[in-house]
Amino acid sequence: MKMFSAETYKQRREGLKKQLSSGIVLFMGNEEVGMNFKDNVYHFRQDSSFLYYFGIDVPGLVGIMDLDEGTEIIFGNELSIDDIVWTGPLPTIAELAANAGVSQTRPTTHIEEILKTAKAQQRTIHFLPPYRSVNKQKIQAWLEIHPEQQAQEASVELIKAVVAQREIKSEEELQEIDKAVNITSEMHLTAMKGAKPGLIESQLTGLVHGKAISGGGDLSFPIILTVNGQVLHNHYHGNTLKEGQMVLCDCGAEAPSHYAGDMTRTFPVGKQFTERQRELYQIVIDAHEAAVAALKPGVRFKDIHLLACKTLAEGLKGVGLMKGDVEEAVNQGAHTLFFQCGLGHMMGLDVHDMEDLGEQYVGYDESLKKSTEFGLKSLRLGKALQKGFVVTVEPGIYMIPELIDMWKSEGKYADFVNYDKVETYKDFGGIRVEEDFVITGNGADLLGTPVAKSVSEVEAVRASSF
Amino acid sequence: MKMFSAETYKQRREGLKKQLSSGIVLFMGNEEVGMNFKDNVYHFRQDSSFLYYFGIDVPGLVGIMDLDEGTEIIFGNELSIDDIVWTGPLPTIAELAANAGVSQTRPTTHIEEILKTAKAQQRTIHFLPPYRSVNKQKIQAWLEIHPEQQAQEASVELIKAVVAQREIKSEEELQEIDKAVNITSEMHLTAMKGAKPGLIESQLTGLVHGKAISGGGDLSFPIILTVNGQVLHNHYHGNTLKEGQMVLCDCGAEAPSHYAGDMTRTFPVGKQFTERQRELYQIVIDAHEAAVAALKPGVRFKDIHLLACKTLAEGLKGVGLMKGDVEEAVNQGAHTLFFQCGLGHMMGLDVHDMEDLGEQYVGYDESLKKSTEFGLKSLRLGKALQKGFVVTVEPGIYMIPELIDMWKSEGKYADFVNYDKVETYKDFGGIRVEEDFVITGNGADLLGTPVAKSVSEVEAVRASSF
Ligand SMILES: [Mn+2]
Ligand SMILES: [Mn+2]
Repeated sequence: MKMFSAETYKQRREGLKKQLSSGIVLFMGNEEVGMNFKDNVYHFRQDSSFLYYFGIDVPGLVGIMDLDEGTEIIFGNELSIDDIVWTGPLPTIAELAANAGVSQTRPTTHIEEILKTAKAQQRTIHFLPPYRSVNKQKIQAWLEIHPEQQAQEASVELIKAVVAQREIKSEEELQEIDKAVNITSEMHLTAMKGAKPGLIESQLTGLVHGKAISGGGDLSFPIILTVNGQVLHNHYHGNTLKEGQMVLCDCGAEAPSHYAGDMTRTFPVGKQFTERQRELYQIVIDAHEAAVAALKPGVRFKDIHLLACKTLAEGLKGVGLMKGDVEEAVNQGAHTLFFQCGLGHMMGLDVHDMEDLGEQYVGYDESLKKSTEFGLKSLRLGKALQKGFVVTVEPGIYMIPELIDMWKSEGKYADFVNYDKVETYKDFGGIRVEEDFVITGNGADLLGTPVAKSVSEVEAVRASSF
Repeated sequence: MKMFSAETYKQRREGLKKQLSSGIVLFMGNEEVGMNFKDNVYHFRQDSSFLYYFGIDVPGLVGIMDLDEGTEIIFGNELSIDDIVWTGPLPTIAELAANAGVSQTRPTTHIEEILKTAKAQQRTIHFLPPYRSVNKQKIQAWLEIHPEQQAQEASVELIKAVVAQREIKSEEELQEIDKAVNITSEMHLTAMKGAKPGLIESQLTGLVHGKAISGGGDLSFPIILTVNGQVLHNHYHGNTLKEGQMVLCDCGAEAPSHYAGDMTRTFPVGKQFTERQRELYQIVIDAHEAAVAALKPGVRFKDIHLLACKTLAEGLKGVGLMKGDVEEAVNQGAHTLFFQCGLGHMMGLDVHDMEDLGEQYVGYDESLKKSTEFGLKSLRLGKALQKGFVVTVEPGIYMIPELIDMWKSEGKYADFVNYDKVETYKDFGGIRVEEDFVITGNGADLLGTPVAKSVSEVEAVRASSF
């Protein structure tokens, strides 16, 4: 548990209040979740907005801010002596609340009456869309809103206000993100050095996972470490690494403060890339570099995504996998046969920062709505960048046999795709290269310790690992 | 995902049906749980009873057995081509069900009507006590039972029948448990070899955690690795290891089949135990050995617990921490100042096997009810052992300053405790030694590869690690 100063949390709450008119703001902390029985719990993860405004990293809390009366209260139950035998002495809820600059605490049972009274008085009760089942049940009990209605009944005014604050990272937040990315860098170096033919993916994954835990925090998301990089959300770790294959490792650490890192590297199982691996890897690097060079305040991330897509399409045309007019190919979406997803996303306390507040508020705005087209519909961030945004840049090339078969049989994008050549790449796998950046006044800075990325850098690490 | 043969699951279900009279048996599979947003999920853990009877290790399933009609159905939703872009091709629910010997599958939406019809016909619907919030919500929607009522409304007939099957481990289950304990042994050797003064607990924990992941499964419970072994449920990993301290490491792996291992070792941060550490460590080993020697079918585990307590009390008297008549001290519970918990528990698909089915059914029976006394109330297993039970043996000595202060001020057990001497041990910490055993025809066999345990074995590993 790592907290900023009480002043930091007070300022954040004051900043929030200034954006809101009236009513009660309700922040639901998270509870423990039993894995296979109640008391065998997953590692506790506090809700990120609760962390942002209160910083208290213990389960079972609820925070409210009364906008009209100006009060702030943390609801939670203190430990008994019986608990202390099992847990040792821990700070009280009152002490934890004081660390966050909140002077009032009450037992959990008190919240129901406060909210029911407020509801009876027809006061607005602002809450964020809940994602944990148990919090949905509580909101149902307290506010009489059915779980399936709660996302719609969540406060758009509150969501927009929270996004406006959380999307701009402060200097002290950036330091925490940098720590997370530094541990993430170590995880990637561990994978890149540890791979060898004959190892099972899970054996390598264990080394990588261990680095995150050794960093004092945890994973920021489940590790993807696979020889089948074309499967975008692949958490199977049962394959044996073979010479000639590539490992795609997408993983990140969460610092003890719960800020996230998120990087991807793709490297050969052997000492070197094969010729066609090297060609496509270089195309991904070119797209990555084009995108990074374009990062700056005022530029729409959607345009940077499309720039990366064009660079990918040009490269794919260069090796004969695509053909025709590159600009037109990207306009029509032909490149999405190879790059089915988005260039990147916001990152902060969540690896996909604030994803559950709604992409229409986090990644888009009044002037830019999210597209529903294949490819663009998976772009989580489209709106104009601002100083203090933290974003990932993660172009890739993925040869998905099922998609190739389907589109080929439909004759889809036949003017832009050389299906005969693509057929010979159906066993290719996937490549992604991902790094994290903070938007500065006139560009962007890489976060964390750089990890081998160019063909020659990656091959040098691999050669030294045998 | 590792399954046994379809025949195994069929036999288990037939065995269950034979114990039950009529109605519908409902098995709730688990769902994914979002950590900090919906799509950033914890590692998936299937419900253990669902695994036991159906073996299918994917989220969102429900299984039913109609005892009167003899039908078995798995409810779940098949993937779309859109999903396959992200997940790659996966076996269908129908294929997975067939692997478990179940021929009928239906979309998830169909279950509500089936259960509502059965309810309208006043048929019995047997279900186990749910522990996941989302499953409580489903049962509420399907059976109109409030979440807080569900534990009471769960089927005792079903619970008893499930316990009767799951508590006796088959040969193929024992092989899986052995795999889990073997990985667990590696985790402990890693901790014992990796410790050194100056390391933060989390750094060592990462190495241990990584071993579990490298084993192809996961942790069977959150790692306890601490210099404050007296805190029984201690998941804080922020202390720096110092010469003169001991590390208590209680951890276990879950094999890919989800069977658990659970071991504890306590070892010095330096090369050797101090004199008083060695003395108390030997007392714990003596209690451990006395207990293990007593394991056999027909003996109540409660009696073995009390035997271990007596051995502990004798040892503690030997070093002057306790006094008076040992038998009487244990009868009165004076030893619980040092050993506040139980000697062990059942282990299988759950590390505390079937804990959520209720200790009154798993660890006790008609002839032996659980005690409510301090100490004994934390003994999860009391009933007579049977061939095929898998149990842990984990005596310990814990110096809990808050408990010592409280009982001393109350004059509690003043005839049996030398509080003056105990005062000088308040900074001692805690010691636990835990291993896993299967009850055989006439005794018990240790599961997994043995790990250094005696004072000299532990000190030899430590000396070779510097
Ligand atoms: Mn990413
Ligand atoms: Mn145990």
